Amino acid sequence: MNTKLSKMPLVRLVVTGLLFVWPFLSQAADPLSSWNDGPAKESIINFVSSVTDAQSKDYVDPTDRVAVFDNDGTLWSETPIPFQAAYAFDEIKRRSPDEPQLAADPMVQAVLDGDVGKLLEGKHHDGLMQVLALTHAGMTTEEFDTSVTAWLKTAKHPRFQRAYDTCTYVPMQQLLGYLRANDFKCFIVSGGGADFMRVWSERVYGIPPENVVGSTGQTKYVVRDGEPLLIKTLDHLFVDDREGKPVGIHHFIGRRPIACFGNSDGDQAMMEYTTIGNPLKSFGMIIHHTDADREYAYDADPPSSGKLTTAMDVASERGWTVVDMKTDWRQIFGDESMDSDESSGQKLFGNWLAEDIEGRGVVDRAQSTLTIAADGSVSGSTSVNRYHGMATINQKSIKFGPLATTRRAGPPALMDQEKRFAAALEKTVRFRIAETGLLYFSDVEGNDVLRLSKMND
Amino acid sequence: MNTKLSKMPLVRLVVTGLLFVWPFLSQAADPLSSWNDGPAKESIINFVSSVTDAQSKDYVDPTDRVAVFDNDGTLWSETPIPFQAAYAFDEIKRRSPDEPQLAADPMVQAVLDGDVGKLLEGKHHDGLMQVLALTHAGMTTEEFDTSVTAWLKTAKHPRFQRAYDTCTYVPMQQLLGYLRANDFKCFIVSGGGADFMRVWSERVYGIPPENVVGSTGQTKYVVRDGEPLLIKTLDHLFVDDREGKPVGIHHFIGRRPIACFGNSDGDQAMMEYTTIGNPLKSFGMIIHHTDADREYAYDADPPSSGKLTTAMDVASERGWTVVDMKTDWRQIFGDESMDSDESSGQKLFGNWLAEDIEGRGVVDRAQSTLTIAADGSVSGSTSVNRYHGMATINQKSIKFGPLATTRRAGPPALMDQEKRFAAALEKTVRFRIAETGLLYFSDVEGNDVLRLSKMND
Repeated sequence: MNTKLSKMPLVRLVVTGLLFVWPFLSQAADPLSSWNDGPAKESIINFVSSVTDAQSKDYVDPTDRVAVFDNDGTLWSETPIPFQAAYAFDEIKRRSPDEPQLAADPMVQAVLDGDVGKLLEGKHHDGLMQVLALTHAGMTTEEFDTSVTAWLKTAKHPRFQRAYDTCTYVPMQQLLGYLRANDFKCFIVSGGGADFMRVWSERVYGIPPENVVGSTGQTKYVVRDGEPLLIKTLDHLFVDDREGKPVGIHHFIGRRPIACFGNSDGDQAMMEYTTIGNPLKSFGMIIHHTDADREYAYDADPPSSGKLTTAMDVASERGWTVVDMKTDWRQIFGDESMDSDESSGQKLFGNWLAEDIEGRGVVDRAQSTLTIAADGSVSGSTSVNRYHGMATINQKSIKFGPLATTRRAGPPALMDQEKRFAAALEKTVRFRIAETGLLYFSDVEGNDVLRLSKMND
Repeated sequence: MNTKLSKMPLVRLVVTGLLFVWPFLSQAADPLSSWNDGPAKESIINFVSSVTDAQSKDYVDPTDRVAVFDNDGTLWSETPIPFQAAYAFDEIKRRSPDEPQLAADPMVQAVLDGDVGKLLEGKHHDGLMQVLALTHAGMTTEEFDTSVTAWLKTAKHPRFQRAYDTCTYVPMQQLLGYLRANDFKCFIVSGGGADFMRVWSERVYGIPPENVVGSTGQTKYVVRDGEPLLIKTLDHLFVDDREGKPVGIHHFIGRRPIACFGNSDGDQAMMEYTTIGNPLKSFGMIIHHTDADREYAYDADPPSSGKLTTAMDVASERGWTVVDMKTDWRQIFGDESMDSDESSGQKLFGNWLAEDIEGRGVVDRAQSTLTIAADGSVSGSTSVNRYHGMATINQKSIKFGPLATTRRAGPPALMDQEKRFAAALEKTVRFRIAETGLLYFSDVEGNDVLRLSKMND
């Protein structure tokens, strides 16, 4: 034990919100560290500051702080094809040999022929919608969840060669955390399928299923062998795209957002609904894909979805912020080197339970947990509070960024353990996984500060 | 100033949740004080205790603590006719003299003839649904909000002679607060119109619009004179009744609830969806209307909606708790005597701003507010935290029950003011409104502890 370390007090940073941030030394000063300084970053901070300042004329009550995010191309990549389409295509390839009636559908045939152009025809990519419905229908909602989860574990993005759910943008993940720390309620409003996104949205973005607005198919309630089940059908209930987005916001959320984030003309209607004539101070932001090296560069002529012309034309007149990915974003994805070290990085992902904190053990009835996802996002519980944030992982090194936490009080013994757990994470710079399967975190001087065991998923 | 009073420390009660309760002396011991002791009350407490106890095998993570409540007959009365129908009928009577094409509809004629039976025919009360659509269609969503708000301010329940939004059940209001204090996310899942309920659900129940699942009509997005608008149409999008309720839960919430509260066969499907085969510990409760003196008594043969037969038949087999309103509820509505004293009680309702706390003034930049609703529910902000709860109001007396609060930290000056504001509310036993319009709260010894001025609505 290094006694010097115990002198570092864990001071809680006071922010106006239910979510508090453990001020880890590494990045405590900047919750948007993956954004380069510039007008885009500044516009976000100015907006958030003004609506959360009780003395400002632009102050907005927390209950009205609703922020809506498009998903494909805004929170994660949508190229070369939207990831839900990649799932559907993989499903079709897997299932069609055994299901000739599925293969007989002309749109399914287009998938098997690789004719993406045919699938993307029509205002809402009608062929694609049909393929999605075909591959999703007839299952129970639980079977669908299982199928999507299994796919995410094995499928890789063709260019980045990493799991699709690690192709989320770190700057947008930080932005979600920053808004939540300022009492915003963050919703996804996407043309993608609500059921598809709800499988992983909480794990990947910290956005719970009830905050996901998407296109929805009709489900049917049946009781089979005494068990209540919901079966997905072929019928569209709702297409959450273009003019459907404000309709979806009204339908699901029931009040007007004050902040809207999108990347294409499909987001223009909800951007206008958010920012024109809103009695509350509002904010609109367009992510412009300008970075062919680190991600993709497209606007008027995208590889698949994400056409951006009319929304861009009016952006300046409407006062919307346009993000230039190449110059505004310091980082695009979580650390890519993670995937290069199968022997340790991969094993790190999953759910862990603290067994010992700085050599002082743990309280039996208080579980301190840590979940590490492949994109570097981390979350867990101290048995009193929940926390989430990002970690930078590289070969054998791991460094936790600011962690947003709930801020409950608990019995003294548990509060003490929480403090020690947070302090241990803060000190962590390296990890190793022993042959026993136990995970050890150590500090700069090589002292073990945390021992964790793997939990069942 | 009475120095003795300042010695009473305001100790925060520690509960497991983001919502904390200021432990007012009056009722601090029992968050369900309007429930009589007995198996119903006990079953709620046992369920909540087991799913929030981290050491219990039945522990449920806060993110999965979803509770769903039917509205009509469960959270407020539905007799003699559902209140939304009362609104539609009043609208028809108001509008039909000037709108002959409206009056020409046979269902509108049934309303004008008082033929409620005709309107309630059909599985989902089809005539009534049509009347609702007719009276709601063609308006912008904002016009509709304004119309409902205006109606609630003037219309009175025919028997209780009080505003409809004060006909909510105090035991259920307390239950909502109790569940929220234990980190539950509470949703309304009602056959009623989502748009209708969302106008007042946050003010009346503390349930924000995005947590209201209801029947929905299709809206259309238009831009008129450069302003984005949503226009309500005649088309049903979704009927949230019977088998529609689990479908609606999946559609809007996206995960299975662990607690379900209803009062009729229309709630049976969502009750089964909640409690049968749920991998998490679950709870079902039926409110049985057995109190003709204080409210109404009905089950198999209700005055309008709320038929309860098949759900009751299976309740015992399913392990659902049946609430006997007459014996299980100590109180039904908020204090009825409020309406008897027009000269003071009525003037008390509305939004107030603290101008002075115990003779020591207030911090300029920190607004401590108090909103008093006609049903005795109170809410407000201390400029750092928001709170809500119930007050008992009688002639010149007012006594605040436990107030659930968020628990942010703020600058010391504001935290100090919050403490003093909470302490002043705690001591309050009497109120008076001066000719200046200022509201004074005083303690048992007659000392003024709080001076407030009326804010604009």
